[in-house]
Amino acid sequence: MTAGHDAELRAMRRAIELARRGPATGANPQVGCVLLSPAGEPLAEGWHRGAGTAHAEVDALAKLPAGAAHGATAVVTLEPCNHTGRTGPCAVALVEAGVARVVYAVADPGRASSGGAERLRAAGVEVEHGLLSDEVEAAIGDWLFAARARRPRVTVKWASSLDGRAAAADGTSQWITGPTARADVHRRRAAADAIAVGTGTVIADDPALTARDADGALLAHQPVPVVFGRRAVPAGAALRRHPHQLLQYDGPELAATLEDLATRGIRSLFVEGGPTLASAFLAADLADELLVYLAPTLLGGPGLALGELGVPTISAAPRFTFSAVERLGDDVLLVAHRAAPTTPTEGN
Amino acid sequence: MTAGHDAELRAMRRAIELARRGPATGANPQVGCVLLSPAGEPLAEGWHRGAGTAHAEVDALAKLPAGAAHGATAVVTLEPCNHTGRTGPCAVALVEAGVARVVYAVADPGRASSGGAERLRAAGVEVEHGLLSDEVEAAIGDWLFAARARRPRVTVKWASSLDGRAAAADGTSQWITGPTARADVHRRRAAADAIAVGTGTVIADDPALTARDADGALLAHQPVPVVFGRRAVPAGAALRRHPHQLLQYDGPELAATLEDLATRGIRSLFVEGGPTLASAFLAADLADELLVYLAPTLLGGPGLALGELGVPTISAAPRFTFSAVERLGDDVLLVAHRAAPTTPTEGN
Repeated sequence: MTAGHDAELRAMRRAIELARRGPATGANPQVGCVLLSPAGEPLAEGWHRGAGTAHAEVDALAKLPAGAAHGATAVVTLEPCNHTGRTGPCAVALVEAGVARVVYAVADPGRASSGGAERLRAAGVEVEHGLLSDEVEAAIGDWLFAARARRPRVTVKWASSLDGRAAAADGTSQWITGPTARADVHRRRAAADAIAVGTGTVIADDPALTARDADGALLAHQPVPVVFGRRAVPAGAALRRHPHQLLQYDGPELAATLEDLATRGIRSLFVEGGPTLASAFLAADLADELLVYLAPTLLGGPGLALGELGVPTISAAPRFTFSAVERLGDDVLLVAHRAAPTTPTEGN
Repeated sequence: MTAGHDAELRAMRRAIELARRGPATGANPQVGCVLLSPAGEPLAEGWHRGAGTAHAEVDALAKLPAGAAHGATAVVTLEPCNHTGRTGPCAVALVEAGVARVVYAVADPGRASSGGAERLRAAGVEVEHGLLSDEVEAAIGDWLFAARARRPRVTVKWASSLDGRAAAADGTSQWITGPTARADVHRRRAAADAIAVGTGTVIADDPALTARDADGALLAHQPVPVVFGRRAVPAGAALRRHPHQLLQYDGPELAATLEDLATRGIRSLFVEGGPTLASAFLAADLADELLVYLAPTLLGGPGLALGELGVPTISAAPRFTFSAVERLGDDVLLVAHRAAPTTPTEGN
């Protein structure tokens, strides 16, 4: 191991810290950059502050006088972009500044923006990648997922009795699960970019779809409410008082809707229900994660949490993998992930 | 703490060990007895070997010459009986042998046999109870339950997908859960006195209802197969080759059937299915324990693990308490117990 490697490892750790200063939601990922002198000394730092602002590499370069980055190494969490958008390609900026070596953690899966590494190499810059890539994958997992799959990562959540019912025969459903499970749902809502609900549930339950604490106060981050279905959201609906403007999609094509959400910068979608919408996502095999809150009770009858999924025979059933099993107060939460990828991925 | 107490504590531990030598199934409980001299020295030991044989106290007394138990202390796991059956009342035998003090762990909940403590006290014998009662309650829990409730303890088991389906649309159900979960079912079958199944399942699936190891070999203890329903069990059914003769009940009255099973010495009933029988036990609120094996898959459609339970509204739903949540291979087992007692208990 060379002294250069140690300096680059320290710089990447720092770049990961810097990346976190940027916004965790929106169209662009969190990215950090540290410029090192040929001797391995930090020269400048940068990070991305959101769509329309300088990328991390350009932010770092801008802090140096002209010529000061000559022969430098740029350590970046994500592959420098090759895309002229509201800003020029970072790959070009690095080449023009005379950077001699670029080390990045994770390749850019963006359709338009990738190819930065190739452009750098073509200009004679030494390029390496993979340093601390697991850490960066974990930190910007939702953005990477959305960029690779060109749709948000989808979590389908339901609460049911042990026999898979979400409501009793008379339609009553509040509350199947207890306060600890409900608080967990609110925390997970707050971690999602958007929250999806069908018009049937909007009309029947008038949900607020906000992420709240135990006292009912709004948590810091609120998911964008997304309504699926043709029926109008009533003028007086609680959803109309949500901190974010709601989006409504009346088409039956879930995949196309998800693609549209991805172009709006939505990387993670929390599907709350009801049964019709949850079943539609599952029947289309568009659920990446399941959150099943189970209450220690039995309801029987017609109030199923999930309806028809189009599974003809048991060998055709979609397989998931349990990733967590938690007791929440009197209830149990099962977290499961789709065992096989549900969407094509980019070649990189 | 007196030396007498220590000697009695040691004697009770020994009596619990002795009790285990008796049969764990059948009409009578496992009981052990140690006779101590007035100085606290062990004089004789006894245990019960099953219906029709001497009770533990009489078994111990029989090992001593006449008069040798005069002034002794009898330490017994269960209250000495007050019942003349195939053997005389133990309370009388203890009095006649001149025993001065009786210490027992748990009161006898039997309708005909209880009252031994009273009869002993009336004859001037010093009586104490409660020593190590938790250990004895745990060791003979099923027998105590059956004696108190006058029916077997009922476990209802099902395996389902996360959406509560036990079969796909075409009826296929083998195997929803994996080998680890199935092995767990077989171990629990072997721990039950009897195993219940509906005629629908007998005709559709032709189950063996034996408890087997991973290689298909029979485990040491086999539950008695009990068939519920009017339809005949086919002459060639696997169930007809079960090591135990099957019992069939064609009446709709589950409670009466359970009472009859209790009179046959069946203390625990493992309800395997199918959905109709499981739902009937649950609708009648006759399930003391639920075993829900959940596979990380989804099936949708009509193949529900449980059907109608007669729950009109959510506040009327039966509440259980999770007592264990286990991962078994790829699957999860949820064990739940009825939160409130489901049957009247004796006053003792």
